[in-house]
Amino acid sequence: MTDRVFNFSAGPAVLPLPVLEQAQQELLALPEVGASVLEISHRSKAFSGIHESAKESLKSLLSIPDDYHILFLQGGARLQFSMIPMNLLRGSDSPADFVLTGTWGKKAREEAEKEGAVRVVWDGKKTNYDRLPTADQLDLAPNSAYVYIASNETIQGVQFSTEPDTGDVPLVCDASSDFLHRPVDITRYGILFACAQKNAGPAGVTVVIIRDDLLKRSQDSLPGYMNYRIHADNDSLWNTPPAFGIYMVGLVARWLQDEIGGLEKMYEQNRDKAGMLYQVIDECDGFYRGHAQPGCRSVMNVTFRLPTEELEKKFLAEAETNGLCTLKGHRSVGGIRASIYNAMPVEGVRALRGYMRDFLAKNAG
Amino acid sequence: MTDRVFNFSAGPAVLPLPVLEQAQQELLALPEVGASVLEISHRSKAFSGIHESAKESLKSLLSIPDDYHILFLQGGARLQFSMIPMNLLRGSDSPADFVLTGTWGKKAREEAEKEGAVRVVWDGKKTNYDRLPTADQLDLAPNSAYVYIASNETIQGVQFSTEPDTGDVPLVCDASSDFLHRPVDITRYGILFACAQKNAGPAGVTVVIIRDDLLKRSQDSLPGYMNYRIHADNDSLWNTPPAFGIYMVGLVARWLQDEIGGLEKMYEQNRDKAGMLYQVIDECDGFYRGHAQPGCRSVMNVTFRLPTEELEKKFLAEAETNGLCTLKGHRSVGGIRASIYNAMPVEGVRALRGYMRDFLAKNAG
Repeated sequence: MTDRVFNFSAGPAVLPLPVLEQAQQELLALPEVGASVLEISHRSKAFSGIHESAKESLKSLLSIPDDYHILFLQGGARLQFSMIPMNLLRGSDSPADFVLTGTWGKKAREEAEKEGAVRVVWDGKKTNYDRLPTADQLDLAPNSAYVYIASNETIQGVQFSTEPDTGDVPLVCDASSDFLHRPVDITRYGILFACAQKNAGPAGVTVVIIRDDLLKRSQDSLPGYMNYRIHADNDSLWNTPPAFGIYMVGLVARWLQDEIGGLEKMYEQNRDKAGMLYQVIDECDGFYRGHAQPGCRSVMNVTFRLPTEELEKKFLAEAETNGLCTLKGHRSVGGIRASIYNAMPVEGVRALRGYMRDFLAKNAG
Repeated sequence: MTDRVFNFSAGPAVLPLPVLEQAQQELLALPEVGASVLEISHRSKAFSGIHESAKESLKSLLSIPDDYHILFLQGGARLQFSMIPMNLLRGSDSPADFVLTGTWGKKAREEAEKEGAVRVVWDGKKTNYDRLPTADQLDLAPNSAYVYIASNETIQGVQFSTEPDTGDVPLVCDASSDFLHRPVDITRYGILFACAQKNAGPAGVTVVIIRDDLLKRSQDSLPGYMNYRIHADNDSLWNTPPAFGIYMVGLVARWLQDEIGGLEKMYEQNRDKAGMLYQVIDECDGFYRGHAQPGCRSVMNVTFRLPTEELEKKFLAEAETNGLCTLKGHRSVGGIRASIYNAMPVEGVRALRGYMRDFLAKNAG
C-alpha cells in the first residue's frame, strides 16, 4: 500500500483496495477455471456465475424489485444521453422535462433535443449551478414523457439528497457519480443509470436499472445496440458485454455488502467524510469558499475556491508533494475539487483536512 | 502457468501470458503513478502516455498512414454495425454493397438496412457459408457508398487472405476476429475495425481505423456517441474511454512488436499453427470434415465435424479432461471449432493435434 497515493480524481476514480487485490490475484486465472476473466466466453458457466452474482449483489444492496432489469452496457453516460430519448421520447406526443443542475444534465439535454421535444423545467445557470431547485420551483407536467435529473453534478458539487416527486411520470436519473453511495428507493425511478468509473468500477461499463414497463416504448427501428428492449430480452448478452467491468462492479458491490456492511453504513461514512471537509470550509473565515450552497452540497465532490488563483496553484502543488493527488477543479468552476467517493478511505480525507488546516494557517491573512 | 488450460474460445479469447503478467503486476499501481490504470483520469499525463503508446504501436505494426485516425470506442462490433451506416450511408444517394460470407456480415447488414439502401453483392448462404466469392463473382458498383466485408467469419471459419479490390469505393472491414494476425495494406481500407476480445485485448474496447476524408459524411444530427467525427476530433476522449481496454491493447501491440517480432512473423506462426490442424483434417480419410473449402480456410478458427454427433460429444468431453477447452462449434455449423488466435501458443495447437490424432486412431472405422 506504500506506493499508492490518495487519489481525489473525479473519475475514473479510486477503487477499494481489497477489490483491486482480488482482481490482481485472479488476473491470470480465475479459481477452478484456468483462464483469466479477460479471456473467457461470455456464454461460459464461469462468466454466467460472475454476471449473476453482480446482479444479485446490486439487487440486494438497493432492494431492486423484480419488475426492474439490471443491464450492463458500454458507451458510458454519453451513450445513455442518446439511448434514453431514442427509447423513451421518439414517437412520444409529450416532451421530456429536464432539470438542469449542472454540466452533465446540460449535455444530456443536448442529445435529447436531437430526438424529440424537451422542456427545461429548471435551470441553475444564473448562479453558475451552485444550488438545486426547491420542490415548489419545479414546474413538472403530469403527462411528460419523463423527468430527467442528474442526482450529483461532479463539476459543480451539488447533489440531490432526495429525489424530486414526479408522480406517475417516470424519473430518469444519471447517478453516475453517486451510484451506491446511499440507499435509494428504486421504485421512485423509471431509469437509474450510472457509468461505473466514479463509484462502482472501472471505465467501460454502465449499469442501467430500468423498469420493465418502459421497454414497451422501444421501437424496432432503433439501431440494435441502442434498444433497451433488446438488451433486457437478452440479459445484457445480445453482444459480448464488458466482462471485466461487470466482474469489477460485482467485486465492488460485494465489498459494500461484506466489508462496509451495506449502503446505510456507506452513507454514514460518506456524510462523515464530507463533513470533515465542509467543516474546514465553514470555519475558515472565508479563506476556502465552497461553490455549492450549504443545503445542496455534494458528499461526493467537495468544490471550493481559495482567495487567489496563485494560492490555488500553490495549494495544488504542495498537496501533490504530500501524496494528495488530482485535486484540481474543473475549469468551469475553477479552484479545487476533492472527489471523495465510496472507495476514498477516511484516512485520505483526514490527511486532506489536515493539509487544508495547515495551508490555511500558513497562508491566511 | 500450471493452473492455466489451453483455451480455444472464439472470443473473449486467450491473451498473451506476458501481457497478463504485466497487467497483474501493475494492477494496484502503475509505476511512478501511485494508482491503478483502473483509477486514473483519462485526462491525466499517465493515461495520455498509455493512450499515445497504444496508438503508436498500432501505427507502427500496421504502417498506418497519417490520414487515418485510430479510435478506441465502446459497444463492440455491434455498435459499429450501426455507426457505419449512420455515418456513411445516411443521406447518401448510393446504396452500400455487402458481401455476405457468414454470420457477422449478415448481422451488420440487418443494421445497415435500418439506415439506408443496401445491395447484397454476394451471399454464401446456399452452401452454408463454406466459401468466399472469387473476384469475378463480385458485382461491385463503382458509385456505392461503401463495400462491406468481414475479413474472417469466426462461426464458419472462412477468411479472406487478401482484400477484394473496390477501386475508389471505400472498403469497410470487420476485422474483429483477425485484426493484427497479418500485415495489411491499410490504404486499401476506408474503415478497418475490430472489437478487441478475439485478437487484441479484452472485451469492451473496439479499435476503429478510419480514413480522414470519410469523416465529412458524419452529420451533426447524429447521436453524439455515434458520430465518428466527434470521436476523431477529440482523439477518443470526447467521453471517458475504455481505459483499461486501451491499456491492454497497447500491451498486446507491444508484445507483437517486441516478443513476436512484428506481423510478418505473427502471420508465419499463425499459418504454421493452422496448418498443423488442417493437415490432420486432410490426412484422416474423412473422419474429420472441415467446414470451410480449402481455399477459404481461416487461420484463426478451424471448424470441422466428426462422423456423428455422439463422437463429437465424446471428442469435446475427453478434450476437456486433457486441458483442451472451449472447442465446441457454434450451433449453426455444429461440431468443433478451434480458435487459434495470435495468443494461442504453438504448444496448445500441438497438444490439440496430438489429441486429434489419438482420438482418430481410437475411434475411426
